[in-house]
Amino acid sequence: MKRYAIIGCGALGGLYGARLHQAGAEVHFLFHSDFDHVRRHGLRVDSIWGDLHLRDIHAYQSVRDMPPCDVVCVCLKTTSNKLLPELLPPITGPGAAVLLMQNGLGAEPEVAQFLPGAKVAGGLCFLCSHKVGPGHIRHMDYGRIEFALFSAGGKDMLQEIVADFRAAGVPSETAGDLVTARWKKLCWNIPYNGLCVVLNAETDRLMADAHTRELIRQLMAEVVVGARAAGGEIPHDFPAKLMAYTETMKPYSPSMKLDFEAGRPMEIEYIYDRPLAVAQAAGVTLPRMGVLADQLHFLDRRREGLP
Amino acid sequence: MKRYAIIGCGALGGLYGARLHQAGAEVHFLFHSDFDHVRRHGLRVDSIWGDLHLRDIHAYQSVRDMPPCDVVCVCLKTTSNKLLPELLPPITGPGAAVLLMQNGLGAEPEVAQFLPGAKVAGGLCFLCSHKVGPGHIRHMDYGRIEFALFSAGGKDMLQEIVADFRAAGVPSETAGDLVTARWKKLCWNIPYNGLCVVLNAETDRLMADAHTRELIRQLMAEVVVGARAAGGEIPHDFPAKLMAYTETMKPYSPSMKLDFEAGRPMEIEYIYDRPLAVAQAAGVTLPRMGVLADQLHFLDRRREGLP
Repeated sequence: MKRYAIIGCGALGGLYGARLHQAGAEVHFLFHSDFDHVRRHGLRVDSIWGDLHLRDIHAYQSVRDMPPCDVVCVCLKTTSNKLLPELLPPITGPGAAVLLMQNGLGAEPEVAQFLPGAKVAGGLCFLCSHKVGPGHIRHMDYGRIEFALFSAGGKDMLQEIVADFRAAGVPSETAGDLVTARWKKLCWNIPYNGLCVVLNAETDRLMADAHTRELIRQLMAEVVVGARAAGGEIPHDFPAKLMAYTETMKPYSPSMKLDFEAGRPMEIEYIYDRPLAVAQAAGVTLPRMGVLADQLHFLDRRREGLP
Repeated sequence: MKRYAIIGCGALGGLYGARLHQAGAEVHFLFHSDFDHVRRHGLRVDSIWGDLHLRDIHAYQSVRDMPPCDVVCVCLKTTSNKLLPELLPPITGPGAAVLLMQNGLGAEPEVAQFLPGAKVAGGLCFLCSHKVGPGHIRHMDYGRIEFALFSAGGKDMLQEIVADFRAAGVPSETAGDLVTARWKKLCWNIPYNGLCVVLNAETDRLMADAHTRELIRQLMAEVVVGARAAGGEIPHDFPAKLMAYTETMKPYSPSMKLDFEAGRPMEIEYIYDRPLAVAQAAGVTLPRMGVLADQLHFLDRRREGLP
């Protein structure tokens, strides 16, 4: 198995890193606020895939102490992406892969620009997992990953990575087209994240009301239009399937709502602004998405005590 | 002066009715919950135009006790408009005028349909006034009324009504075109009412944030398009003037926000649904207005404990 770096050991990075470690991979974890706690008490993952309590992991507080790795898993929220030009170069060996296991659009080209030698790929995680305390993660449902290459080369390496994740018990596969894969994920994230925040509701309430249901349908239709403008192609019946699927879910607070409630910044830039800008550059206006983006920015600024 | 009926003696009807009474007009006031209080303690209006405390007014609990009047001022919120087919016929004498002193679009044709003999007009009130207690109104700012006819006839009568209001100290004038006048008022009401509710903010915060400012501009642009689809014409520079004007106002909670906070139904139907339907019938989609309408309906249904 390859040598892995996990950048950001929250609900997502903690789970996948722990699974890889447990499966025998050499995994180097970069922690932020939880570093001291994990050094003393280890990393706990309560998971539908089995509970783990890892006391003997390679934990770091700084990338300067970490070795170069074959695969760098970026598991931070996109709100921290401005740190990547500092975080990634020291640990990204020549020919290494960088997996952007994040929501939203536009991180891969940014990373490829300052790491021209790296094999950059997106990792789309379909996951319900929360950090419940320092170094303590609870994985409640799902967990599948779709990997898709941004860089021209790296196909074989991505297959090896998928094999490692599968060996660690993580359902994984490659998606043919990163653009389509990212926009398909946006098709869920754009309506549900934003509306759950703005209307202070969980997914089930939005689905039970005829007005928000119709609004979700219209927002998804805009995402389909945006995907096409970006060169992707979301199947025509995908939004309806996604809505039907969401109806079967338990009442759910999307990550943006959890961030907002906890007073953390929201991933507005990568989930809304970047897709809107891509569409705009192709001459396509997505007005309903624009309303949500503006409303979220307003709420985000107010959270910061601005203006 | 003419004989007036004031239907709905809240912040708006109470103020204008009291001014007309004080100026010598015969005014018949229909009260709802405040009837007993007003019978005992009179009607108090604290106003920038001078305070009034009227102990000897014609107060009623039912239109069946009221005489037919020359001018019926409908000062209810549009959320009560379903009552109008019961309330208006008993007090609307032959050839009487009915003034719909309400926000939003579409009340005049409804009233004209069940009162074919009446002279129906809109009364657009630019007013900052609140009910602060039973039979007690505080008029803080503004107060001008624009009247515009819906019915084909009635021009002379409307001039006489304007003269009465002016004699009562209320700045009043006639507007040429009811459609344009109503959509011009919507140009303020649509962005500010909805956004103040959905984002739980007053007007000043919305104007201070670049994102909501831009959203307000886009919403006003949609109203201009809607007005044109409806056969009206809002001057090109009107939205910018309206925004500049709003910036000079003190922090302000629009009536829809006060209704929402007090757990009352919001005027979504007449301020959003009707204008959207008029535009839609003309083949014009106003997507940003549609988002706000859907969000408000969701919040309104949740207020009712639905679904």
